[in-house]
Amino acid sequence: MSTKISPLAPEIIKHVDLIDGVNVSITHCGLKKNNKEDLVLIKFDKPSDIIGAFTNSRTPGEPIIWNKSIIKYGKVSAILINSGNANVLNGKKGRTSLINIINELENKLKIPKHEIFIASTGVIGEPLNEKKIIRKIPYLISNLKNNYDSWLSAAKAIMTTDTYPKIYSNKILGKNDVVINAIAKGSGMIAPNMATMLAFIFTNAEFKRKQVKSKFFEMIDKTFNSITVDGDTSTSDMTLFISVQSESKKLKSIRENKIFFSSLEKVMTTLSEYIVKDGEGASKFIKIYIKGAKNKIDAKKVGKSIANSPLFKTAMAGSDANWGRIVMAIGKSNAFIDSKKLSIKFGKFELLKKGEKVILSNLKKIDQYLKKNEIEIIINLGIGVHSWKITTCDFTKKYISINTDYRS
Amino acid sequence: MSTKISPLAPEIIKHVDLIDGVNVSITHCGLKKNNKEDLVLIKFDKPSDIIGAFTNSRTPGEPIIWNKSIIKYGKVSAILINSGNANVLNGKKGRTSLINIINELENKLKIPKHEIFIASTGVIGEPLNEKKIIRKIPYLISNLKNNYDSWLSAAKAIMTTDTYPKIYSNKILGKNDVVINAIAKGSGMIAPNMATMLAFIFTNAEFKRKQVKSKFFEMIDKTFNSITVDGDTSTSDMTLFISVQSESKKLKSIRENKIFFSSLEKVMTTLSEYIVKDGEGASKFIKIYIKGAKNKIDAKKVGKSIANSPLFKTAMAGSDANWGRIVMAIGKSNAFIDSKKLSIKFGKFELLKKGEKVILSNLKKIDQYLKKNEIEIIINLGIGVHSWKITTCDFTKKYISINTDYRS
Repeated sequence: MSTKISPLAPEIIKHVDLIDGVNVSITHCGLKKNNKEDLVLIKFDKPSDIIGAFTNSRTPGEPIIWNKSIIKYGKVSAILINSGNANVLNGKKGRTSLINIINELENKLKIPKHEIFIASTGVIGEPLNEKKIIRKIPYLISNLKNNYDSWLSAAKAIMTTDTYPKIYSNKILGKNDVVINAIAKGSGMIAPNMATMLAFIFTNAEFKRKQVKSKFFEMIDKTFNSITVDGDTSTSDMTLFISVQSESKKLKSIRENKIFFSSLEKVMTTLSEYIVKDGEGASKFIKIYIKGAKNKIDAKKVGKSIANSPLFKTAMAGSDANWGRIVMAIGKSNAFIDSKKLSIKFGKFELLKKGEKVILSNLKKIDQYLKKNEIEIIINLGIGVHSWKITTCDFTKKYISINTDYRS
Repeated sequence: MSTKISPLAPEIIKHVDLIDGVNVSITHCGLKKNNKEDLVLIKFDKPSDIIGAFTNSRTPGEPIIWNKSIIKYGKVSAILINSGNANVLNGKKGRTSLINIINELENKLKIPKHEIFIASTGVIGEPLNEKKIIRKIPYLISNLKNNYDSWLSAAKAIMTTDTYPKIYSNKILGKNDVVINAIAKGSGMIAPNMATMLAFIFTNAEFKRKQVKSKFFEMIDKTFNSITVDGDTSTSDMTLFISVQSESKKLKSIRENKIFFSSLEKVMTTLSEYIVKDGEGASKFIKIYIKGAKNKIDAKKVGKSIANSPLFKTAMAGSDANWGRIVMAIGKSNAFIDSKKLSIKFGKFELLKKGEKVILSNLKKIDQYLKKNEIEIIINLGIGVHSWKITTCDFTKKYISINTDYRS
């Protein structure tokens, strides 16, 4: 498997602002080969408020089943994350492994079970040897730290086919110093349905769970649920959003609330884009804007149909202005379409206007545009006022190489 | 673009039994490069009964729109097929081109417009220069023939990215000599929704349209609608089924009717498998059997979700027994699933039994099995009595090569 960093990776990793009251430790427990770090413990000084979004897969992993059962209590004291094994479809053994880990954390950390969240990512259907994890718990507990390097190491330790760590931070409201920071992972099996393959977002701002929840899910829908690498929805997707309880900041006004949520959206958008930019084998980052749809659901359907079409994705890999394949994908989306009202633009270049081909004098410029590594495609369905954005990447030979020998 | 014949191509092309009363002619009109034949006229001595299934795409090609408008009359006297241009999304010009062709055929053949069917396959959104077609019509009319070589040439002339012609024939009922024969094309943009990318089936048996119609659509669903190469549904899919009126044979008994329909199903199954076996870049032919589903719709959903998953398809290309990816695809299908009842077999090798991993002593044998070029996967959902079969191929680097430079 290639270990070269994605050509679309961000040039600089933003420095993370620290939040008091939350610490992290990292180690290698043996689930990944070559001594790579594969186990992360996040520990909160005080039980903290948590909101979570989980995969809608009908074959969810054990951690998803567990987390879904405790999210109603709304508190978190610890999160344990392992990479290298997803603990999915391991029968009764899978459940036992998870419970043994939870029990150990409960005993060693003296915290209630329903404040312990678990995340696992890696191969599906391989029994998880939980002893490898359990014997490292004392080490993890005695090595908790809160510094930039540790958080970066944590972002690295949760990677699987990712080629770079995904970490992002936003500091807002001036002296009040409200911070949102987050780590995430994801590269293949990315077409999240509720949340993406592991994202953890922290803030020192106080939030009322009930109030923030609907806003959070709305943003999940616009960010993590609107990206796709390969149309394959993971069994282990989750996004956790945590208000760290220590010297928590209060959001004092409507204005401060507004700034906070816009900052949260920025964090979620950036992380979801980081995941697409690390799409397996990706050479191009593509934003698809759907406008003029009858309703939002149709706009989303059209965007996803294009973004998941292998023929569209390979045309993009070949820098080919083959808008016929876009038309095909719009056609199969099952959304309400009137071919005579359809317009298609690649960047600023209009190729189809209300169902009529635009005769272009500057074909070379379009070719140049399509050779860039960031492409915007604007579809106007011309029949309504609703819009949506879907973010994706192209489909290259490298995607095939990575995935024909993932396990070998 | 590669022109090597698919490694999955049938070794022998079955000799086609001729049906009196239908003739064919073939020529090069200039829509394909390098003097390749790209235009086919099929002419019936007498108006014949026809049933058609057409794409459900919301951006259908002009020929689809035309054929849908005349199929209600139920008669056909001529079919004109061109490759090299699909005449889709060409605005008002596209409609005019089609009408000009129909008018010319009406005049030259002295047949009513509503007995003229048109099929086009090739690039989408390129204006069709119908003059190239029209000036060849006199030649086509004066060169109509009914022999094996001509039908084989016709099957070749309708190819686009296909690597071999698809032609099949079945002779039944002994002395009564009922014949069903057919030609088809298709290789990429294959996930038919109603019918596949061009199939033409002829018989000399008389049929009552109303009686045969529901049976025909049922078979379309089981054959052409249950194959997928890349999950991309074409704008131009169609299957026409024609009872050639000349010295038509009567089906005299329930038994003869039964034999006739089972033979028709054989023809449709074989042609749909030919299309999958010519899937762009395919190196493996894969049959996915879904059993034990709550209902047929769920069985089909699960089968298609697996067959269209890039991660499953690349695992197959790598001969990797990665059943975790099958679990993922089952999970994202949105069908009713109980992980604890799920079983998965690769050929005769059971890997998952009622949600528990089967410990295998013969991993090498599974590896050997997966290296074959025909693979069977059997999924038992364990919750009902309904089943379905989906046929597909793997996803190789060659698929990417073919589709990154289709137009260049």
